[in-house]
Amino acid sequence: MSVLIVGSLAYDDIKTPRADKKELLGGSAIYSSIAASMFTRVSIVGVVGGDFKEKDIKLLKSKKIDLSGLEIINNRKTFRWSGAYAEDMNERTTLFTKLNVFENFSPKIQASLKDSEYVFLGNINPELQLDVMKQINNPKIVVFDTMNLWINTSLKNLLKVMKLADVILINSEEVRMLSGGEKNLLKAGEILIRKGAKRLIIKKGEYGCAMITKDSVFMIPAYPVREVKDPTGAGDVFAGGFVGYLASVDNPCEENFRKALAYGTVLASFNVEDFSIERLKTLTKKEMEDRLESFRSMIQF
Amino acid sequence: MSVLIVGSLAYDDIKTPRADKKELLGGSAIYSSIAASMFTRVSIVGVVGGDFKEKDIKLLKSKKIDLSGLEIINNRKTFRWSGAYAEDMNERTTLFTKLNVFENFSPKIQASLKDSEYVFLGNINPELQLDVMKQINNPKIVVFDTMNLWINTSLKNLLKVMKLADVILINSEEVRMLSGGEKNLLKAGEILIRKGAKRLIIKKGEYGCAMITKDSVFMIPAYPVREVKDPTGAGDVFAGGFVGYLASVDNPCEENFRKALAYGTVLASFNVEDFSIERLKTLTKKEMEDRLESFRSMIQF
Repeated sequence: MSVLIVGSLAYDDIKTPRADKKELLGGSAIYSSIAASMFTRVSIVGVVGGDFKEKDIKLLKSKKIDLSGLEIINNRKTFRWSGAYAEDMNERTTLFTKLNVFENFSPKIQASLKDSEYVFLGNINPELQLDVMKQINNPKIVVFDTMNLWINTSLKNLLKVMKLADVILINSEEVRMLSGGEKNLLKAGEILIRKGAKRLIIKKGEYGCAMITKDSVFMIPAYPVREVKDPTGAGDVFAGGFVGYLASVDNPCEENFRKALAYGTVLASFNVEDFSIERLKTLTKKEMEDRLESFRSMIQF
Repeated sequence: MSVLIVGSLAYDDIKTPRADKKELLGGSAIYSSIAASMFTRVSIVGVVGGDFKEKDIKLLKSKKIDLSGLEIINNRKTFRWSGAYAEDMNERTTLFTKLNVFENFSPKIQASLKDSEYVFLGNINPELQLDVMKQINNPKIVVFDTMNLWINTSLKNLLKVMKLADVILINSEEVRMLSGGEKNLLKAGEILIRKGAKRLIIKKGEYGCAMITKDSVFMIPAYPVREVKDPTGAGDVFAGGFVGYLASVDNPCEENFRKALAYGTVLASFNVEDFSIERLKTLTKKEMEDRLESFRSMIQF
């Protein structure tokens, strides 16, 4: 099965303690689609400006990513974001956000994509996520990402998305917020399950992730990376790898959800080894499979 | 094989956001010996005052813990420590430390214990740890714990212990300090391996632990506990379970080191469910084995 991804396409300026890079290809739809393309065909629904580079279109097409749902607004500019990472590469500060074309983004799902069975909704306003869900006929798996901003400003819609979707991706801090302040992650996760979430993936960054349902708990550490060059997009690569693998096997059972999580983890570990999608661009299936096996052997007792 | 444990025996006053308890049995030798006693016979070398309670002696003896190496100084008092935990139970503040008999603790290993093959050196001055190691004839496995205080005040001796011992237990912050400021945990661990550590266990608290040697990396998350009542002693219980299991199988290979770590993790998860050693006191082998299997199934993909 193929994957439908709705999210941002952007150019990022990134500062790390060791480098200062400008106009890097970024955005949730870019990171997640390239990751998902390791497993299956992907269609992007998103918007860019007339300044979106031809070489980036070519790159996406070389990964067999369908861009028929990509809107290009010629007289405007592509979304731009800039962030700076602190010495330990975990904390980051947003230097600027220029929404540009993304400001009025209202995803329209064309007829040919309405039957998509595997869907990833990148981190956008929950109202838009709901709107996309209404346009899709009968998806098997909808995975969505969110952030603290929407917990604070669009809680009602966010909870609606959570009930309708199959998987919510959320970080430790957000799961605590959304649970109403519960400090214990497992209990916070269980509160969200009672509030209607079917499957919760809690991202703990360098400490790995946990996946919780009504009757299962799964946890894996992150794959240890020697040199993190740029953590930008790690969560989206993780999500793209997760949903891409699920779509490729097309049998959403606990075992496959777990394997999907492991692939997401491994792809994210490659992604942080270089800026933007540089590492994923050249990543081979064999490198990915080798690291998955090395990861498996690291956690087995 | 049996285990020799050298460390503190104490009475702790513990404040948590929900309780305030006084005169709780504590100290590294107490926590680690009760954990190790789940697997094998244990001998404690340590010191207490005349106020050490008869019921606590009885408790240790009921766990078949050999106290022939326990010195009792009748006219002085047992080591006392008090700590307060913050709301999230991770950060703690020391309220007071009264070394009492522990101030002049200089462990003497009696003849009958000099042939101990499995040894755990709790967190004491590295000079004393070295002194103990000199008194033991030909141990198979020496595991030692340390803390930031000794990195700052006794670095030279600490590095000597590290080279001589088989396993160093250390937390994330300490491994970074000891490596000379390397932020990346894997690289920091590798620096300590180059400095002479044979096997490094990095404790990451609620995020689990990693075990690193020259040619292997192993990582496991912590077992998720719904209600942490008192984290005191979790590291010592972990260490005791680890060395206790190793001694019981008496075949220190990578596979057994990993299983030992998993047992340590599981025992620590029980320990934090109640104050002091209350939960371990009544813990059965079956409960331990059941949780080990539940843990294994939580991390398998």
